[in-house]
Order: sequence, then C-alpha cells, then structure tokens
Amino acid sequence: MNRIRCVTPAFCDTRTDSAPDGRSGWCCSCQGSAPPRVSCDEFQDVNVMVVLGFGFLCTFLVRHGFSSSGFNLFVATIATQWALILMGIESWYDKRRILVDLRSILVAEMSAASALISLGAVLGKVNPVQLILLALLEVPAFILNEWVLLSLLKVRPQNNIMLLHIFGAFFGLTLTWILHRKGSQQGFEKEKFDKKSGLFSMLGSLFLWMFWPTFNSVLVDDRFPERKLEAVCSTYLALAVSAVTAASVSVLSSARGKLNLIQMQSCILAGGVAVGASMTAVHQPWEAMAIGFTAAVLSTTGFKYLKSHMLLAFDCHDTAATLSTHGLPGLLGWFAHLILEIKNCDDHTVAIRFAVFHICTLLVTITISLTTGALTGFLLSLNFWRPPQNRKCFDDQAFWEFPHLAVRK
Amino acid sequence: MNRIRCVTPAFCDTRTDSAPDGRSGWCCSCQGSAPPRVSCDEFQDVNVMVVLGFGFLCTFLVRHGFSSSGFNLFVATIATQWALILMGIESWYDKRRILVDLRSILVAEMSAASALISLGAVLGKVNPVQLILLALLEVPAFILNEWVLLSLLKVRPQNNIMLLHIFGAFFGLTLTWILHRKGSQQGFEKEKFDKKSGLFSMLGSLFLWMFWPTFNSVLVDDRFPERKLEAVCSTYLALAVSAVTAASVSVLSSARGKLNLIQMQSCILAGGVAVGASMTAVHQPWEAMAIGFTAAVLSTTGFKYLKSHMLLAFDCHDTAATLSTHGLPGLLGWFAHLILEIKNCDDHTVAIRFAVFHICTLLVTITISLTTGALTGFLLSLNFWRPPQNRKCFDDQAFWEFPHLAVRK
Amino acid sequence: MNRIRCVTPAFCDTRTDSAPDGRSGWCCSCQGSAPPRVSCDEFQDVNVMVVLGFGFLCTFLVRHGFSSSGFNLFVATIATQWALILMGIESWYDKRRILVDLRSILVAEMSAASALISLGAVLGKVNPVQLILLALLEVPAFILNEWVLLSLLKVRPQNNIMLLHIFGAFFGLTLTWILHRKGSQQGFEKEKFDKKSGLFSMLGSLFLWMFWPTFNSVLVDDRFPERKLEAVCSTYLALAVSAVTAASVSVLSSARGKLNLIQMQSCILAGGVAVGASMTAVHQPWEAMAIGFTAAVLSTTGFKYLKSHMLLAFDCHDTAATLSTHGLPGLLGWFAHLILEIKNCDDHTVAIRFAVFHICTLLVTITISLTTGALTGFLLSLNFWRPPQNRKCFDDQAFWEFPHLAVRK
Repeated sequence: MNRIRCVTPAFCDTRTDSAPDGRSGWCCSCQGSAPPRVSCDEFQDVNVMVVLGFGFLCTFLVRHGFSSSGFNLFVATIATQWALILMGIESWYDKRRILVDLRSILVAEMSAASALISLGAVLGKVNPVQLILLALLEVPAFILNEWVLLSLLKVRPQNNIMLLHIFGAFFGLTLTWILHRKGSQQGFEKEKFDKKSGLFSMLGSLFLWMFWPTFNSVLVDDRFPERKLEAVCSTYLALAVSAVTAASVSVLSSARGKLNLIQMQSCILAGGVAVGASMTAVHQPWEAMAIGFTAAVLSTTGFKYLKSHMLLAFDCHDTAATLSTHGLPGLLGWFAHLILEIKNCDDHTVAIRFAVFHICTLLVTITISLTTGALTGFLLSLNFWRPPQNRKCFDDQAFWEFPHLAVRK
Repeated sequence: MNRIRCVTPAFCDTRTDSAPDGRSGWCCSCQGSAPPRVSCDEFQDVNVMVVLGFGFLCTFLVRHGFSSSGFNLFVATIATQWALILMGIESWYDKRRILVDLRSILVAEMSAASALISLGAVLGKVNPVQLILLALLEVPAFILNEWVLLSLLKVRPQNNIMLLHIFGAFFGLTLTWILHRKGSQQGFEKEKFDKKSGLFSMLGSLFLWMFWPTFNSVLVDDRFPERKLEAVCSTYLALAVSAVTAASVSVLSSARGKLNLIQMQSCILAGGVAVGASMTAVHQPWEAMAIGFTAAVLSTTGFKYLKSHMLLAFDCHDTAATLSTHGLPGLLGWFAHLILEIKNCDDHTVAIRFAVFHICTLLVTITISLTTGALTGFLLSLNFWRPPQNRKCFDDQAFWEFPHLAVRK
Repeated sequence: MNRIRCVTPAFCDTRTDSAPDGRSGWCCSCQGSAPPRVSCDEFQDVNVMVVLGFGFLCTFLVRHGFSSSGFNLFVATIATQWALILMGIESWYDKRRILVDLRSILVAEMSAASALISLGAVLGKVNPVQLILLALLEVPAFILNEWVLLSLLKVRPQNNIMLLHIFGAFFGLTLTWILHRKGSQQGFEKEKFDKKSGLFSMLGSLFLWMFWPTFNSVLVDDRFPERKLEAVCSTYLALAVSAVTAASVSVLSSARGKLNLIQMQSCILAGGVAVGASMTAVHQPWEAMAIGFTAAVLSTTGFKYLKSHMLLAFDCHDTAATLSTHGLPGLLGWFAHLILEIKNCDDHTVAIRFAVFHICTLLVTITISLTTGALTGFLLSLNFWRPPQNRKCFDDQAFWEFPHLAVRK
C-alpha cells in the first residue's frame, strides 16, 4: 500500500523538508527511504527511447523525415511538461506546490509515450497545431485512465502505466478513423520509403529494441533488485525471440520469400510490448520467450493482413502500424498476464476474482481511450485547423524551410 | 577547499599507494574518500556527446559529412590527450608522474569540448592541419583560463569548466573573423543541406539534447547525490522548455510560418548551455524553466538575425552558429547565475562582492579567449598551411578518397 | 578458483533457492556474494555495441544497408540464444534446468560477437540461410574452444572470451577463402560506398568506439572496482591513440594525402581490440597507449596492403576487413600480453612457463577456428543453399521487398 502511494503521482507526499541540505522545492526521492529510486542512467535510457527511438522509427517516410523526428521531439516535450503539471494537481491543492523529481519526470515521459504512439497512427496527415492538440488532450485522458484504475480497481502503478501501449494504440486508431480522408484507399503519393530512409528508421527501431529492457524494468521497485534483473532478462529474451520470429514469419509469409524492412522494424518490438504488459506475472525465461514468440507472430500477421484490411474495410489509415506494433502485442500481454496469474493461483475463487478484476481493467482502459480518442478526433476534424491537403500529406515541404536545398547533381 | 584540490587537475595529489591491491600508476579515485567519483556510465554519456553529438551536429552540410564527423573525432582525441598532458604538468614537476584516472580523462574531454565548439565556427573553411593547430593552441588557452580563474579568483571547478561554452564561442568567432575569406558574403556554393544530411545532424543534435543532463551534472560532487539529481532535473526541464520554445519561435519568426531544421537543432540545446553555466545557483524547477525559455528565445532570434548580420557587418562567417548555440546562452547563464545569487543573498555587501567577483570571471574569460583566439587566428591565416580555396570549401572531396564512389542510377 | 567456477558457464552452479523472495528459475547473480555482478547499464552498453555497432559498421555498402543491419540483428539474436542453450548443457545434465541471468546473457552475447566478426568477412556474398548455419556452427565452435582452454590450460574466463577477435577473424577468413567466387578479383559491381552510406557506417563505428571501454571492462570482477576503472581508462586511452594514429597513417600512406573513411572506421577500433586481448597485463597508461599506437599502425597498413594482397594471392575476399580490424590487433594484443607478463616477471622459470602456456592458448584457438571454419565453409559451399550470383552480391534487392521504393526525382 505504501508503495502505491509513492509511485502514483496523485498520491505522492514525499517531504522535501527532510532533504539533507535543508533545501526545499525538489522532491529528493533518492534520499528518503520510502519512494523507489530511479537512477540517472535509467532516466537517460528512457529518454533515448522516447526522443530518439520513437522519433526515428517513422523516418522511413521518404519525404517526411524532418517532420517525423522534429514533431516527435516537439510533442514529447510538450506532453511531458503537461503530464508533470497534471500529475501535480492534487499536490497543488494540498500544499500549493508541485513536486518535481527524476521519478516524476520519468513517469511523465512514459505518459507522454502514449501520445507518441497515437502520433504514429496519424503521422503525415495532420499539421503541428493538430499534434499539439493531440498531446494536450491525450495526456489528461491517459492520466484520467490511470487515476480511475487506481481509485476504483487499485491497479498497481507499474501495471497501470504499461497499459500505455493499448491506450495509445486505440486512441490513435479512433483518431485516424475519424480523420479519415477520401482517397486514402488509393494510397498517398509520398507514403513510401527508400534505401536511406529505411536505414534511418532502422536506427530508431534498434534504439527502441536495445533500451526496451530498461523501459520495462524502470518502474520495478528497486528495493527488490532481483525483480528488476528479472524484468531486464525477460524483456531481453522476449525481444530476442521476437526479432528471430519477426524475420522468419516475414520471409515465410512473403510470396517471393523476401523480407519487408518496415514490417520487421515494427515486429521485432512486439515482445517488449507484450512482456511489459505482463511483467509482474512473468517469472520463467520460457514464459518470456513464449510471449515474445506469440507476440511477434501476431504482430507480423497483423502488419501483413490487418493493416490493409483496416484501411479498406474500416477506413482506418494507420501510418506507423500502431495496431500491430502496440495494440495487438499489448492485448496479448494483457491476456498472458491473466493466464499466468490464473495458472500460478491455487485457489479457485481468487483466480476468478483476479480474472474479473483484470477484465475490468482492460474494459475501462479501452472505453476511456475510445471515448477520448473520438472526442479528440471530432475536435481535430474541424476545418478550422486547416489540415494539409491529400497531395501535401507525408511531405516535409509543407512545414519546413528548405532555403539551401541541395540540387542533386 | 579540499574539494577544489581534488577536482582541479593542477592540484590533484591523490595517492595511488593506497590502492587496495598495492598497484601504482593509476589514481584510483573511486577508492579514496576524498575525490568525487565519476561513474563509468557518466563517462560514457559525456563520451557520446563529445564524439557523436558534436560530430554529427555539423553533418547537415551536404557534401561535408565525412569531414564533420571524422575531423571531429580526430580533434576530440588529440585535444583530450593534449589536455591530459597539460593538466598533469604540475604533478609532473612535483612527482615525475602524471596521474590518469577516469575523472582526469573526463575533465580533459570536457576541456576538449571547448576546442570542438570553436571548430564549429571554422568548419569547412580550414584543412586538417589547421584543425590540429587549433586543438594544440586552444586547449592550453582554456587550461590557462581555468588556472587563472582558480588562482586569482578561486572560482569553483564546476563553474570554471562550464565557461567552456563562452570561451569556445568567442575563441571560434575571433578565429573565423581573422580567417575571413573574400567572397563569403555571397555564400559558399556547397554550404547547404538536403533531406538526408538534415537527418544526420538531427541525430547529433538529439544525442547532445538527450545526454546534456549528464554533461551538466557529472562534475557535481557525488557526496551530495540530491544536488546531482537536482542538476539532472533542472537541465532536463530547461532543455524541454527550450525545445518547445525553439520550435515555436522558429515558426512565429518565419515569414511563411515554416520551421527551419538547422535553426531548431541549434536552439533546442540553448537551455542546456544556459543552465550549465548557472547550475550552482538554480534550485527551483521554475528557475530552470525560465532560463530555458529565455535562452531559447535568445538563441532562436540570434540564429535568425545575428548570424547573417555578423557576416555582413563584421565579416564573421560562423558555420555552425556557435554564437547563438553556445555564446549567447552561455552569457545568459552567466547573467542568470548573477541574478539568482544576488536574489538569494540577504547581505548587501556580500551581494556586491559576488557581483564584482562574477563580472571579473567573465571579463577574464572573454579577454583570454579573444586574445588567444586572435593569436591562433594570425598563425592559421598564414598561407604556409595552404587552406582550401573558396570553391573547395565545405567539400569532402578535398580531403577524402572516394575510390568506389557509387554512380547514381 | 572460485571465480573461475562462477564465470564459466559450464561450471555455473549458483543456487536460485537462495533468492530473497523464494522464487526459483532465475539465477539472481546480483544477490549471492559469490558471482561477479553485471550491472544493467553495462549490459545495455554491450547490447548497443553488438546490435547497433556491428550492425551499422557494414552499412557502408551502398546497396546493402538493409541486409547489413537487418541480418546482423537476426544473426546476433539467434547466436545469443543458441549460446545460452549451449552454455547451459552441463547444468541441464546436472539439474535438468538451464540458469539464465544477466551475466549469462551477456557472456552469450559476447560469444555471439565472434559470429558477427566472421559475418563481416562473408557479408554480401551469402544468403540468410547460410548466415543462420554460420551462427549455428560457429557458436558451438567458440564455446568448445573456451571449454578446451578452460579445461586443459585453466585460462581465466576474461582472457578466454577476449580471444573472440582472433577466433572470429580466422574463422571468417577460412570461410571466405573456401567460399571464394570466380570473378571476385575484378571486384564486385555493387561493392562501393557513397556519401550517405559512409556516414551510416561512421555511426556504427563510433558506437563501437564509444562503448568499447565497457566491452573490455564488463567481465572484470566487480569486487575490485579499481581494476574495472583501470580497464576502462586503458581502453579509452588505447582507442584515443588509435583514432589519431589511424587518421595520420591513412593520410601519410595515401598517394594524394587523402583520408579513406572506411579504412579509418576499421582502424580506430584497433586499440580496443588489442587492449582487450591483453587487458589483464596492462597496468600503466603508457602501455595502453603504446599498444593502441602499434595496433593502429598494424591495422592501417594491413587494411591498405594486406586486404588486396589476400584477395589476389590467396583468393580470400574479406568484405569488412576482419583481418586488419580484428585479426591483427588481436594477435598484437596477445603478443603484448606475453611481453608485459614476462617483463613483470622476476623469476625466469615462471616467465618461460607462462610463455609456453600463452603460446599454447593461441595455437589451440587458431587450430580450432581454422578447423571449424573449414568445416563450416565446406558445408556452406554446397550448391544446395543456392548462394546469390555474383551480380546479385551486395544487393539488398535479392532479399528485401521494396514495394514502395521512392522514385528519384
């Protein structure tokens, strides 16, 4: 119970008066014994994932690299600061001050990641003002979801925040469904990749892949270092299995036996997402590996068949395949969590209670994400925001100056 | 006082005899209780900034990517080793040995960073031999400046080394002013960027942005971990505010409402520079954020108006905009330090004494950087070094072999 | 003796029963007092080197970037998991369980690095199925070599694993010699680099350069932190000297005084390889720097003259110059280890015994690598595997889909 109070921003009441040098204003969470610590290195790793990983993952769009990386930084920083403020509201009412420490920045950055996932679904089809609105509306929605889950269902903070994949994916899908453009079935003229832009997004994808173990383990209470190591090992194993599986399934499902780079980039991450969502129940290497394998199969098939199906049948154009990268593996992770907890449970009644609790968690998250996503979508679909025309979609030149653009010789 | 002795290389007298395994030759600073420790991770982070961040920041020049990244590594390694030797001179006279440990390498690398900043001002217009001379002359000048400030004014080492931004910027500007070429007002033929080279420099810029919190906090005494965390948090907040501000001001100040990528890359870093220079006085989140905001506004406006003005009015061609990236935010940080210290000071006399001391620090730094920059400039302007002709400026082919250069098809 | 037992996978018998939370399945090496710890940050650094560094080092091939980075990830993950299984065989026989912890994953990843080095020699001339076979055959060979050296010669694990450079290089060379293609003397049509692909491989090379200190120090017993710092400092110094030397020798040995980027990228790493192989005997900064200097000279000359000589005289086409990047510096490190140990040895008899022991170590390693490399080569040379034709070598289009390949305008 004590842990829940410290980890959840709304309930955080660490005193700064006890800081060794008598200075106040900062919540020196590393000094007190109560709140779990976040080391600077972990913070840096998550920072790298959020700023560089997500930023470069979508640079595969050949004429959209500046926007993909630049707008990602812009949205990430706005969303993080906005989350810091929102998470401090309760503390503001109590004590007229918002406590800012490394842990609260980190939690804010992870909440911002949900906005970056939704960003992936609409990328290239909206303008920066719409992106700012997206950040300003999705972050409160995610924090509301966290607060509801914590208040009503007492969901542990670590499990709570790992729902960001499911939340972000469904929010983004609703958004892109409402913002649907006529003519996107025929494909956008500039939505393609080339040799170099594929390598840039490989870079982003690898940074996500490499630092995912930190992302999943950073919120594990550091007073149990072996759990932290367990989280790192499980995530690594799941990612390793995912990478092999994603490449194999990609070859096997291709007519000419060729790999698809963008598919592979999305799907090697599936294991990280799935294990993240089921982290507290994964204790054996083989469990992590099985989850990684299933997540990669699901994600690869989803990328191949579901993405075009979503577009043709549901008018839902998903730029960075958020459904198969985050949505499906997130759901799988949720399901694996359920199965593993029930398997480890001796008592039948407890198992059923856990199942009900766990299903409610998912229902609440999906409901809130779909509702707020729809509201955001209606707001963003106003012509007032002057979204780019179809032929200017996926084009940097709509938003970036090229005063000295080199002439190709 | 004790701290000053350990941190300043010239006064370092950590005994290696006390190393647990009785081995000598290395100053095992992690073992003794006296000197502040530098962890391997912090060292790696600074290493990444110096080698990769500074190296790729200037790869936006479309035909100059090999030189920007390659010469940066070359100059960084020469300057670091040269700084290690120079910082060990005093110890060499005393004991006939130069102590090398992780901390001294780190301080040497940070001193080398001042040379890399100056490098940004002249990049593309000089040859590698001139770059070696730059490194060999600027590093002693910076260490001389450090030594003067320490001996005369007892400036604390952490504040001392953070003057590297101001020192490097003014040194570089003087250098490029003296090395002025006729015809540079019309612009160089090859000084432009394209879609891919812009992304490479985005990469460098993001690595600087992401690891700047470590850069600012690494020299904070680790016996006060909460101060270290404070430094990390302040720097992150200042950078986050800078990123948002830089993008916003860039759009608002542009005639057609478009962003400029190179401007944004330089200006998102302004908050890190400014907070670094005022670190010891920043204790509240809002202070860091206010500094980050002002620095970004200053830097963005400087980039837009000052850069071309410097060229037309003062014949000073500043390739990587060191004035607005490092110079102005550094000065702002110095000024913020002054204001904050005075604000926190109850005693009027103490405040005036601090102001005089602080102004002297700046005057000494600027005087030494301008003087040594001018001397270096005169030496480098000799035709003996055979600088590249105007039409070969900003061109890799002057210095790099392209034996197998791919033919574009 | 105790240390050897924990570090060597085959002998690992850490009990998981003693885990604080009574959970079993994971070997929580951080909890027990016996086995040296691996921190998450060190693991991440090595991960970055293996996945990103090795992956991007070979992206200089202008039409082979997807394969270089994608296949590297594929082979690295397969080889790591395969190594984990193979290293657990003994434990499987004893207790019917394979223990997986952060350290065993790390050791598995380092063993996988030997396969990645060999991969560099054959890259672009084989298909993914052959690469899988390479991973599946080389990893057991390397683990066999480790086991033989440990059982017969009691080589310390840290020295044992650092032979991966020599092992990987000779294995790869034998492989590429047996897989020799007619017509490769005339050069492959697509084996070239351009401005952008050179920068991508610069990125990989810099990541290897920056994180090499961690790679060399990670297996040093953490109960002697000063030895770990010594390893970090020596490696950094050797790398810094290597970088300066590689650039200088490259200019001096070029007819027109120009640098070769690919040569520089390989040769700046020589110091890290050489110091890694002689780590346990290097105690003075100057020793590290001297080794770094010699390694870079050897590597640069090897790259310039040996690479083409190997092709013309021995029909041995070495894509990524593994001989001069890993082979020669590895041998130099082995030799430096011998010289330094003999120099530090007072007793004549002990010195001779060490020399015999050390020479045996090398002979065993080279014998096993050549033999297993030859066997693997014969297997891979079967037409059954349908290797790509000469004109499809070094071409992504043989293995990757380009459904939306951008048309150059």
